[in-house]
Amino acid sequence: MPSDPTPDRQRIYLDHAATRFPKPQIVLDTMHSFSQHSEAAMGRGAYRSSQHAGAIVAQLRREIAQWIAAENAQEISLHSNCTTALNAGIFGILGDSDHVVTTAAEHNSVLRPLHHLETLGRIQLTVVPVDRTGRVAVGPLLAAITPATRMVAVMHAANVNGVVQPIDEIGRALADRYPADAKPLLLSDTAQTFGHLPISVDQSHIDLLAAPGHKGGSGPLGTGFLYVRRRLHSQLRPSLFGGTGTHSESLQMPAEYPSSFEAGNMNVPALAGWLAGLQETRQQASPLQHLTASADESQHLAADLYKRLDAISGVRVIGRPKDLQLPIASIAIDGLPASDAAMILDSEFGIEVRSGLHCAALIHQAIDSPPDGTLRISCGSTTRRDELDQLAAALTELCR
Amino acid sequence: MPSDPTPDRQRIYLDHAATRFPKPQIVLDTMHSFSQHSEAAMGRGAYRSSQHAGAIVAQLRREIAQWIAAENAQEISLHSNCTTALNAGIFGILGDSDHVVTTAAEHNSVLRPLHHLETLGRIQLTVVPVDRTGRVAVGPLLAAITPATRMVAVMHAANVNGVVQPIDEIGRALADRYPADAKPLLLSDTAQTFGHLPISVDQSHIDLLAAPGHKGGSGPLGTGFLYVRRRLHSQLRPSLFGGTGTHSESLQMPAEYPSSFEAGNMNVPALAGWLAGLQETRQQASPLQHLTASADESQHLAADLYKRLDAISGVRVIGRPKDLQLPIASIAIDGLPASDAAMILDSEFGIEVRSGLHCAALIHQAIDSPPDGTLRISCGSTTRRDELDQLAAALTELCR
Repeated sequence: MPSDPTPDRQRIYLDHAATRFPKPQIVLDTMHSFSQHSEAAMGRGAYRSSQHAGAIVAQLRREIAQWIAAENAQEISLHSNCTTALNAGIFGILGDSDHVVTTAAEHNSVLRPLHHLETLGRIQLTVVPVDRTGRVAVGPLLAAITPATRMVAVMHAANVNGVVQPIDEIGRALADRYPADAKPLLLSDTAQTFGHLPISVDQSHIDLLAAPGHKGGSGPLGTGFLYVRRRLHSQLRPSLFGGTGTHSESLQMPAEYPSSFEAGNMNVPALAGWLAGLQETRQQASPLQHLTASADESQHLAADLYKRLDAISGVRVIGRPKDLQLPIASIAIDGLPASDAAMILDSEFGIEVRSGLHCAALIHQAIDSPPDGTLRISCGSTTRRDELDQLAAALTELCR
Repeated sequence: MPSDPTPDRQRIYLDHAATRFPKPQIVLDTMHSFSQHSEAAMGRGAYRSSQHAGAIVAQLRREIAQWIAAENAQEISLHSNCTTALNAGIFGILGDSDHVVTTAAEHNSVLRPLHHLETLGRIQLTVVPVDRTGRVAVGPLLAAITPATRMVAVMHAANVNGVVQPIDEIGRALADRYPADAKPLLLSDTAQTFGHLPISVDQSHIDLLAAPGHKGGSGPLGTGFLYVRRRLHSQLRPSLFGGTGTHSESLQMPAEYPSSFEAGNMNVPALAGWLAGLQETRQQASPLQHLTASADESQHLAADLYKRLDAISGVRVIGRPKDLQLPIASIAIDGLPASDAAMILDSEFGIEVRSGLHCAALIHQAIDSPPDGTLRISCGSTTRRDELDQLAAALTELCR
């Protein structure tokens, strides 16, 4: 096993948009304990440890449903990350000759599956431009809709600079303009906001929504979910095929969502850890109460981050959102490539940030990133103000 | 969190074909420790923790390659379980109007994706029958091959009764009969044998091979791999699309396997645990030395299991393999449905076994299972002989 190159040094982790660190202790301990004492595979045996695993998974579905105000826990399928969840949703609902409208701010986990369907000639795709802050305007987005439009795919917030999209306004506009049975479906990738900002699939008329467990969801890596509105379940087609523990005599996947989308052995220890993380994070509060407070903290942290960055001459903030809601920023440093800057911040200052294009193919032209991408700083609820001060001091030194 | 219904009781776990339990302590500890101290996302940042994650993943590929005698570590892509790996391989290589030959013994993780392609009219599928022990005969399998046959899919061993298929003989026969560039591809699902029995993709001329990490591989849940022979890499098409940390400016997945098959955030803590498990299991021995010894132990355990089952009047052994190589058995008890038997064994004797069809749709008719399936007993390297004695005593009581 390769040994950790930096076992004992100070670490200022500012890469929360990739994954939360540290995870709540209870997440790791629950996962460890479940693996050590039970480890039973879910729903495929008649013994009680196996049924216990099934009960954990059922409760996790209920918990997630509450966090996004879904009507029913059976609208949640569980996946190994957000990418697999988004692929399942996109391939699961789009049919031949559908038209899809999306934005240039999307992550490659949305752009690449859509582009793939387009190159196969199976869908038509319109990518609506975004402004210099990476935000899509509601008017042009709605104007791109045609009678053939089956889906509008808009992320909740961009992973490159934390800009929050007007998802609520878009959802309401769609619901206002179209009868329920003719409305284009709204799909939202909430990878950067689930667990950080409130979202309601009900109020925002979102039909499909995906998120990882390991970012704002406070869970371990290896977790993610897809929400699909119940009235669509009969139209879904699975894209992953295998054992489901049900209808085993059939060569077809079960017809019922979510089990139709959950082939193969579930990672129950990780799901148990995720459930513990969600419960611990909100304490006794309701998810909405917790998320309202979390949005407030997030906004303050974002303001404090951008205030420090704005003050450093030589640092160019890329795509600065007008409305700062998430503590994620992309910057460029005059005369220093982003990858070099990330390396120096790590080796000289113990500060971990990310450089490059951040798996987003199209947003960079709009926000005017350097060709090699940006230096991305992303904070989490455990980030302290003195860590931001140390970041500012390090960047100031780099700009000298 | 639902509480464990049976926290302190004695547990005789005989469901190793679903997942290994207990996992080696070092697997859980490595995973816990990696999550606690690093948790950096792999290959997507310029900082050292992230590069350390990349080094672990690279070493895991090399380790797995050695266990199956693959030529190159870059022939291994990593997945969240065996089902996702098999789907990636099957959808990744089969093209329109291909003919596929498979066996009635396969798990639904092979049968269902193939059946799906058949119902779409994209492939033609021939399912070769198996004998009363679940074994496929080489002659009829080869006879089913037509000039249009692109793939022969044969599992290494059946999860229902542990029968080992003549994969080596099949691979050699294909290599003997066809020129290298016209040979049907051999795909093998080694879910029940990886880590238990030796297998060589080289000697057995296997072109695609998949396995989970969490069974014989001694790893945690949430892990699996796919092997694809290098000469096929240029023909592969991804079926999962998203961020790869490379070529982010492109709307297409990277062309190079394995990264073309690995979209989304990798579960590095689990992969680190798996690597530790593989290394710990083989100690200082080579994988082949370890697997040769393991096959021997496995054979003895299988003999001891079947000897006990054969001796109980009232127990009908289903599909008893002629050659006992894996300690997996399916049984039926006169007058007692399998699900009831599993429930009683659990609640009265603390013995955990599985009932039903075990996610295998077609083998049961051949081996003459009861309509509601079988009671499956599956042992692992940690199973003790006195546990088999207790199983035998409990079954004897059930048959009274």
